[in-house]
Amino acid sequence: MDYRIEKDTMGEVKVPADKLWGAQTERSRNNFKIGPSASMPLEVVYGFAYLKKAAAHANCELGVLETEKRDLISQACDEILAGKHDDQFPLVIWQTGSGTQSNMNANEVIANRAHQLAGKVIGEGEKTIAPNDDVNKSQSSNDTFPTGMHIACYKMVVEKTIPGVEKLRDTLQAKAEKYKDVVKIGRTHLMDATPLTVGQEFSGYVSQLNHGLKALRNTLEHLAELALGGTAVGTGLNTPAGYDVLVAKKIAEFTGLPFITAENKFEALAAHDAIVETHGALKQLAVSLNKIANDIRMMASGPRSGIGELIIPANEPGSSIMPGKVNPTQAEAITMVCAQVMGNDVAITVGGTQGHYELNVFKPMMAYNLLQSAELIGDACVSFNDHCAVGIEPNYKTIETLLNNSLMLVTALNTKIGYYKAAEIANTAHQNGTTLKEEAINLGYVTAEQYDEWVRPENMVGSLK
Amino acid sequence: MDYRIEKDTMGEVKVPADKLWGAQTERSRNNFKIGPSASMPLEVVYGFAYLKKAAAHANCELGVLETEKRDLISQACDEILAGKHDDQFPLVIWQTGSGTQSNMNANEVIANRAHQLAGKVIGEGEKTIAPNDDVNKSQSSNDTFPTGMHIACYKMVVEKTIPGVEKLRDTLQAKAEKYKDVVKIGRTHLMDATPLTVGQEFSGYVSQLNHGLKALRNTLEHLAELALGGTAVGTGLNTPAGYDVLVAKKIAEFTGLPFITAENKFEALAAHDAIVETHGALKQLAVSLNKIANDIRMMASGPRSGIGELIIPANEPGSSIMPGKVNPTQAEAITMVCAQVMGNDVAITVGGTQGHYELNVFKPMMAYNLLQSAELIGDACVSFNDHCAVGIEPNYKTIETLLNNSLMLVTALNTKIGYYKAAEIANTAHQNGTTLKEEAINLGYVTAEQYDEWVRPENMVGSLK
Amino acid sequence: MDYRIEKDTMGEVKVPADKLWGAQTERSRNNFKIGPSASMPLEVVYGFAYLKKAAAHANCELGVLETEKRDLISQACDEILAGKHDDQFPLVIWQTGSGTQSNMNANEVIANRAHQLAGKVIGEGEKTIAPNDDVNKSQSSNDTFPTGMHIACYKMVVEKTIPGVEKLRDTLQAKAEKYKDVVKIGRTHLMDATPLTVGQEFSGYVSQLNHGLKALRNTLEHLAELALGGTAVGTGLNTPAGYDVLVAKKIAEFTGLPFITAENKFEALAAHDAIVETHGALKQLAVSLNKIANDIRMMASGPRSGIGELIIPANEPGSSIMPGKVNPTQAEAITMVCAQVMGNDVAITVGGTQGHYELNVFKPMMAYNLLQSAELIGDACVSFNDHCAVGIEPNYKTIETLLNNSLMLVTALNTKIGYYKAAEIANTAHQNGTTLKEEAINLGYVTAEQYDEWVRPENMVGSLK
Amino acid sequence: MDYRIEKDTMGEVKVPADKLWGAQTERSRNNFKIGPSASMPLEVVYGFAYLKKAAAHANCELGVLETEKRDLISQACDEILAGKHDDQFPLVIWQTGSGTQSNMNANEVIANRAHQLAGKVIGEGEKTIAPNDDVNKSQSSNDTFPTGMHIACYKMVVEKTIPGVEKLRDTLQAKAEKYKDVVKIGRTHLMDATPLTVGQEFSGYVSQLNHGLKALRNTLEHLAELALGGTAVGTGLNTPAGYDVLVAKKIAEFTGLPFITAENKFEALAAHDAIVETHGALKQLAVSLNKIANDIRMMASGPRSGIGELIIPANEPGSSIMPGKVNPTQAEAITMVCAQVMGNDVAITVGGTQGHYELNVFKPMMAYNLLQSAELIGDACVSFNDHCAVGIEPNYKTIETLLNNSLMLVTALNTKIGYYKAAEIANTAHQNGTTLKEEAINLGYVTAEQYDEWVRPENMVGSLK
Repeated sequence: MDYRIEKDTMGEVKVPADKLWGAQTERSRNNFKIGPSASMPLEVVYGFAYLKKAAAHANCELGVLETEKRDLISQACDEILAGKHDDQFPLVIWQTGSGTQSNMNANEVIANRAHQLAGKVIGEGEKTIAPNDDVNKSQSSNDTFPTGMHIACYKMVVEKTIPGVEKLRDTLQAKAEKYKDVVKIGRTHLMDATPLTVGQEFSGYVSQLNHGLKALRNTLEHLAELALGGTAVGTGLNTPAGYDVLVAKKIAEFTGLPFITAENKFEALAAHDAIVETHGALKQLAVSLNKIANDIRMMASGPRSGIGELIIPANEPGSSIMPGKVNPTQAEAITMVCAQVMGNDVAITVGGTQGHYELNVFKPMMAYNLLQSAELIGDACVSFNDHCAVGIEPNYKTIETLLNNSLMLVTALNTKIGYYKAAEIANTAHQNGTTLKEEAINLGYVTAEQYDEWVRPENMVGSLK
Repeated sequence: MDYRIEKDTMGEVKVPADKLWGAQTERSRNNFKIGPSASMPLEVVYGFAYLKKAAAHANCELGVLETEKRDLISQACDEILAGKHDDQFPLVIWQTGSGTQSNMNANEVIANRAHQLAGKVIGEGEKTIAPNDDVNKSQSSNDTFPTGMHIACYKMVVEKTIPGVEKLRDTLQAKAEKYKDVVKIGRTHLMDATPLTVGQEFSGYVSQLNHGLKALRNTLEHLAELALGGTAVGTGLNTPAGYDVLVAKKIAEFTGLPFITAENKFEALAAHDAIVETHGALKQLAVSLNKIANDIRMMASGPRSGIGELIIPANEPGSSIMPGKVNPTQAEAITMVCAQVMGNDVAITVGGTQGHYELNVFKPMMAYNLLQSAELIGDACVSFNDHCAVGIEPNYKTIETLLNNSLMLVTALNTKIGYYKAAEIANTAHQNGTTLKEEAINLGYVTAEQYDEWVRPENMVGSLK
Repeated sequence: MDYRIEKDTMGEVKVPADKLWGAQTERSRNNFKIGPSASMPLEVVYGFAYLKKAAAHANCELGVLETEKRDLISQACDEILAGKHDDQFPLVIWQTGSGTQSNMNANEVIANRAHQLAGKVIGEGEKTIAPNDDVNKSQSSNDTFPTGMHIACYKMVVEKTIPGVEKLRDTLQAKAEKYKDVVKIGRTHLMDATPLTVGQEFSGYVSQLNHGLKALRNTLEHLAELALGGTAVGTGLNTPAGYDVLVAKKIAEFTGLPFITAENKFEALAAHDAIVETHGALKQLAVSLNKIANDIRMMASGPRSGIGELIIPANEPGSSIMPGKVNPTQAEAITMVCAQVMGNDVAITVGGTQGHYELNVFKPMMAYNLLQSAELIGDACVSFNDHCAVGIEPNYKTIETLLNNSLMLVTALNTKIGYYKAAEIANTAHQNGTTLKEEAINLGYVTAEQYDEWVRPENMVGSLK
Repeated sequence: MDYRIEKDTMGEVKVPADKLWGAQTERSRNNFKIGPSASMPLEVVYGFAYLKKAAAHANCELGVLETEKRDLISQACDEILAGKHDDQFPLVIWQTGSGTQSNMNANEVIANRAHQLAGKVIGEGEKTIAPNDDVNKSQSSNDTFPTGMHIACYKMVVEKTIPGVEKLRDTLQAKAEKYKDVVKIGRTHLMDATPLTVGQEFSGYVSQLNHGLKALRNTLEHLAELALGGTAVGTGLNTPAGYDVLVAKKIAEFTGLPFITAENKFEALAAHDAIVETHGALKQLAVSLNKIANDIRMMASGPRSGIGELIIPANEPGSSIMPGKVNPTQAEAITMVCAQVMGNDVAITVGGTQGHYELNVFKPMMAYNLLQSAELIGDACVSFNDHCAVGIEPNYKTIETLLNNSLMLVTALNTKIGYYKAAEIANTAHQNGTTLKEEAINLGYVTAEQYDEWVRPENMVGSLK
C-alpha cells in the first residue's frame, strides 16, 4: 500500500496515501483495535461537520479566522454532510473517552480536503488549513465531542424516534376509535375479569405512548444545550468574547434545530446528564412498547389453542419444521429492541456516573448507546406499525365466545345483591361448570328477568375514556 | 394466643384477637412469608388512608354512602394517618402483585376500627361498616393500589427528595460563590489541564443538580394522575357518575398536593410508566450525585500523599487499626445510595415492562423501590450536606502548589505562538523536569517578559459561568 | 434519657446509658440518618460475632491474647449469636463504605459486655477488654467487614437459598414424573406448535433449576475465601505469623462451613468480585424462576377465557370488587422477587466496579443486596412451592381439547409427504376452519387410514427426556 | 436490478438475481428494516454452517440423507466457513426472536449454492437440494438457532476472550513479580494508609483476573450443551434415533470444541440460562477490569499535580488544545467496554426471563450481546496490554516521597504503645504539619532509636502474597 508521511506533536506517522486523515487518526486506528473498525457512528461525524462549519463561521465573524479559511472549511464540512467522505472516519467507539482522536479525525480530514479544494495535493506544501490552529480554532476535543454528540442525538430523536413512535401511536389511536364498541372480556392477573372494549384497551396503549412522547420531549431542552465554547475545561480559554452564544446560534441555523449554548460549560464537559436524561425517556418508551407488543401477541395467540382475540398479519412462514405456522414476529423484534434499550440504559448510567474532575471520559460509549436506542425504537415502531399494527383486526367470534363464558360478569350484581352473594354465585357456577344465570336463579338471589336486565356486558364498560 | 373468627368469601379464618385486620389480611400473612414481615411501606398504607377517606367523602357526596358511614370511615382513616395503627399492617411487599390484600388490609382495619368507634366490639354483632361494600365502595384493588402508591411516591418526592437535593444544591451554590476566585489546576482524563476556579467546579455541580431537579419536577405531572375511579379494569364499573374527578379532588384537598384523575384509566391500571418516569429522574440525580461525591473525595484525598485540594470535616475515627485516619465517609454513604438507586431503576424497569392485559402486577415491588430511592436520596443529600458539604474548605497552599507545577499553563501560548511550538515547550519541560518558563525561553519562542505577561493562570479561567 | 460518656481517639461522646455500644457507634448513628435506622443486616452482625470469637481464639493460640480475654470475648460473641443483643446494633447500611463503624460497633459491644461478664459496670473503671487493642487485635475494619459479609452471605445461600430452590425443584421433578404421559399442545412464539407432555414441560423447569443450583455452587469456592488476616491494606500488618490460616480454620470450625483464608488478601479487600460472582448466580436463578412462574400462570389462566391447562390452588379471594375471582398470586410474588434480584444485581455490579486502590468502599451496600436477594429467592421458592407448585394439577379436559384442535399436528406428515404439502393442508384447514384430516384427504395427499396412523399426538412427543 | 422468483409456502417472492438466498430471507429482509442491515453477527452464520454440515453427516450416517446430498451440503458449508459467502446473509438481529429466517437464510444459501456446485443454475430446474426437507432435515429453527448461537459464543469466549484476558493477566503477573520489593504508600478510602509494595498491588489484579477466568470457565460446561435434536418443541420430532448425540459429536469434531447434546432439550429451547450464565461471568470480568484500569489511571495521574506513582506509555497527543498533554487512553477504552458489558448483561437478563412456554424468542438479541461483550473484552484486554500494561513502570522518586510523607506509618506503633497513643501522635503531626517522628518523641512515647527501629515501611508490607 502507498503511504504518505503525516506529523503531529509526537512525530511522524505513515498514513495510507489515498486517505484524507492525518497522524492522530492513524495513531488511534492502530492503537485501538477493539471490535469492528469504524464503529464510531456516522451521526457523530456529521455532528462534527456541523460544528466545525459553525465554528469557522463564528470565528470569522468574530475576527479570528480569515474568510478564505472559513469558506474552505465550510465547503469541506458540506461535503462530509453530503456523505462524500464516509470512508474517511475509520476510528472506533472504544478509543479515548473524550473522543479526542475523532475530533482530530474531523480536523485532519477537513484540513486535508480544504488543501485539495484550494487546488493543492495533500502531503505536498504547507497545509493551507491547519488542523489544530484553524479547523479546531476556539475549540477543544472536550467541548467539541459533547457538542457533536448532542447534535447527533437530538437529530436522531426528532428525526427518527419521535416520528416512528407517533406513527405507531396514530395507528393505535385509529384502532381505538374503530373498535370502541367491541366489547370483550377483560383480564387482570391474566385471569378473566370484567369486560371492556377493544377500543378501550388500545386507548391505554395510546395514552402510554403519549405520556412517553411527552417525557421524551421534556428532555430535549437539556439536550439542546451545547458545550461548545467551553474548550479545555469549561472556562472558554482561547475563545473570543461572545463566541459560545454565536457558535450555538450558527449550529441552530445550520441544523434547523433549537440548539443553544449550555448554561454551564463545566457541567457540559464533566457530566453528561443530558444523555442520561434523554435515554431515560427512551427507556420509558421501551417499557411502554414492551407492554403493548406483549399484549398484542398474547391476544393474537393461537390460532386455535390460544387466546385468539386479535388477528395479526401473516408475514413470513413461521417455522422451518411446522408447516403453516405463523408467528407474531414484529412483536418479537420490538420486544428484543426494548430489552436492548433497557441494557443500553445501564451502560449510559454507568458511564454517566464516572465523570472525574473537569471531564467525563465515557463520551463515545454514551453517544453510541443513545444513538442505537433512538434508532432502534424509531425503526422498530415503523416496522411494527407497517407490518403488524395497521393490519390488526378483532376476531369477533372468539371475542364474543370468551366474553360470554366469563364468570366475572357477576360483578354487575355487586351493587344489587352485595359482594358476598355475588361471590357465591360465581363460585357455585365455577364448581358446577354451569352458567352464572343458572346459579343466580337457583340460589334464589335474582330472577331471570333481573339477571338479563342487570348483567349486560355492554353496560359494564362505562363511559370512561 | 387468643383468636377470633373472621370471614371472607372463601370461608372462616382465625385472626389474633387483638388485631384489627380480618380474614384476607390473615390469609396473605400466612401465605407470603417472604423476607421480613410487614415490609409493605407505611407510606403506601397512609396513601390508602387518604384515598379511603376521599372515597367515603365522594361516595357520600354522590349519594351512595350514608353520612354516618362516611364519618366513621373518615375517623378511622385519620387515626391511621396519625400513626395510631401502624402495627395493624403486617403484610409484605412480596404478595399478590396487585396489592389486593393490602387494599383489603386497609378495608378490614378501617371497618373493624369503625365498628369500635361506633361503640361496638370487633367480632361481635354485624359489622357496622362492611369492608367490601362500604369501605371499598366504588373501588377495586386495581385502582386503589396504584392510587395509594402514587400518593405515597409523590409525597416522598416532594417532602423528602426535592428538599434534600435543594439543601445540598444551596450549599454547593454558596461554595461556588465563596470560592469563585480561587484559581486551581483543572484536570481532564485525571491528568493536569488548564486552570479554573474552585467556584467554577462547584458551579458545575450546582448546574447538574438544577437540571436534575428540573427533570424530576417534569415527571410529577404524570405521577399526579390517579387511577381511582377505574375500578376493576379501567372502565369505572360500579362507580357513580363524576366519581373519578371528585375523588381525585378530595385527595388533592386532603393531601394538599395537585392530584388529578388519570386521563386514561386503562393505562393507569395496566402500566406504571409514571413510576418508571419518576424513578428515571431519581436515577439521573443519582448519576449527578455520584459524580459530585467522587470529585469531592478525590480532591480531599490525602492528607499528605493524595490530591489534597479540599479539606472536609473529620467526623469519625477512620480506621480500627490505623490511628488518626480520617475518611470521606459521607461521600461513601451517598455513592452507595447512588449504586442502590441505579439497581432499583432496573427493578422498576423490569416490573414496568411486565403489565399484562388490563393489569400490571408488579405494583408493590415498584412502589417499594421508588420509595426507597426517593427516601435514600433525600436523606443522603441532607447527611452529605450537614456532615460534609457545609464544611468543605479549599486547602489554599496545596491548590497553589499544584497549580504552579502544571505544564498545561502552556495552553495560554497557543494563540501567541501556535499549538506545535507550545507542545514543544511542554514536552521539553516534562522530559527535563524543568519549568515551562525556562524551556520557553531556552527554545527562543518567548521572552521572559512575554511569558510573565501571557501565562497567568488568573487570566485563563475565563468569564464563563 | 440517661447517658454515659464513652471515648474514642476523637474525644468524648454521650451514649445512652442502657446501651452496650460506645463512642464510634454513637458517632455513626448520629452522622448517618439515611433510611430506616438499624438497617445493617443482623446476618452481618452475626458474621462479626463469629469472626471476633475466631480472632480471639487464634490470637490466644498464637500467644498474643490472654486466655481470660479470649474467654470473655468468646462468651460475649456467643451471646450475640444467640440473639441476645440484636438491639445493640443501631447502625445503617449507608455509613462509611468500609463498614468501619459496624466493626467498631461489634468491638464496643463485645468489650462492654465482656466488662459486665467480668462482673463490672460499664462506664466504670478501666475497660477489662479494649475494643481496639483486644477485640480488634490482629484485625482491621478492612479485613473484618468483608469476612463478616462473606460469612453472612455464605450462610444465607446454603441455609436459605439452596434449600428453598431444591424444595421447589423436587416438587417440579415429582410433577414431571407424575404427568410424563399427559400429552398436550406445545407452544412456540405463544402460537400452537407440535405436542409434548406436561411432564416434559416440567422437566425443562427442573433442568433450569439444576443448572442454576450448579452455577450457584460453583461460586461458593470464591465466597469461602476470607479476607481476615489482611488487616489494613492486605499485607497482614500487626498479625502474628500463621494467623490468617488459623483464624479461617477457627471460623470454619465455629460455623461448620468450609471457609479458608483468601489466596490473595489484596484482592479480598480491594475488590468484591466474589460477591459479584455469587450474585450473578442468584440472578441466573431469578431468570429461571421468572420463566417458570410465568409459564405456570399463563397455563393456569382463565378459568374460562384463558389457556386453562393447569389448575393451581386458590389461596385468597382475588379481587375486592370481582366476586369469586382467584389469581396466581404466588407467581406474582416470585416474579416480583425476580425483578428485585435483577435490580440488585446492577447495584452490586456498580459497587463492585468502584474499588479504588487498596479498598472497595461499597461493602455494606453489596452485602445488603446479596443478603436480600438470597433470602427472597429462598423464601419465595418455599412460598411458591407450598402454596402453589405442590397443588398444581392438569386440567385434563382442556388439555385434550386444545391438543386436538391444533393444526400443528400436521408436522407429523413432513417425513411422509414433505414440508410443502403439509403446509398446504394446514393453511387450507386454517382458512376453511376445518380439520387437518378433512383437508388432508380432500387434497388427496393421504388416505383416512394413513392420517389416523401417522398423525398421533402420543407418537409425536419423542423419547427425549 | 435483476430478480429471480423464489417460492416458499406463502407464495412467490422476487429475489435479487445475483444472491444465493431465497424467499424467506427476502421476506425478512423487507419486513425488518430495523437498524443497520446485515447486523446478524457473522459468528452466528458460521455457527449455522457448522451445524448444517454436522446435521448432514449425522442424517447420512443414520440413513435419512443420501451421501451425494451430504457432500453438496458439506461443501457449501465449508465455503461459508471459509468466508466466501459473507455477503449472502443480509438479515438483522431485530427479526423474529427465534431466528427462523436466519435459519432459512442458511438453508436457502446452502441449497442454492449446492445447486450451483451440482453444476446447475439457481432459479432453473428443480432444486437439487431442498432448503427445508434436505438442509433442514431433522432440524427446526428452534433447535438450530440456539445451537448456532452456542457454537458462536463458545468459540468467541475461548478464542478471543480468554486468551485476551490471559495475556493481560500474564503481563500484570510479570509486573507483580518485577516490582515485588518496591514499597509504596497504600490507600484506603482514597486516603493515605499503611504501606504495601507495587508488586502486591498488582498481585491483587492478577488474583481478580484468575478468579474471573475460573468463573468464566465454570460456565462453559453449560454453554457446551447443544439444543440440536430437540427440533420444534424439544421432543425431537422427526429425528432419527440417536441423532441428537451423534450430531453434537459431529459438531465437536468439526469445531474441535467439547460440545455435547443438551441434557434436557426442553430447557435448551425455552430458556437460555447458559447465555445468562456465561455473560454473568463476562460481567464479572468487566467489574475486575474496571477496577484495575481505574487504579492504573489514578496512579498514573499527573504528570505533576496528580498521584504520579506509575508511568504509562504516551501513545497519542492527548488534547487538541492543550499542547503536550498525554492521557490514559487505553484505560478509558477498556472502562467504556466495561460499562457496555454491564449494560449488555441487563439486556441478556431481560431477554432470558421472557421465554414463554416451549420457546424463548429473544435469541438473536441475546447472541448479539454476548458476542459483543466477549469480543470487546478480549480485544480491549489485548489493546490495554500491548499499549499500556506492558509499558507500566514505577515512578520511584514519587513513590518514595509519598511513602515517607505518610502519617499512617504510625500504625507500626500500635503493637508497641497501643492504638490510642499512636493516634495521638498522628493527629498531632497532622495538626502541626510535622513528622511522626518529631511528635512521637515530643510526646514522650518513644525514643528516636525506637522509632527508627519500629517504623520501617519495608517491615510493614508483610509476607502475605
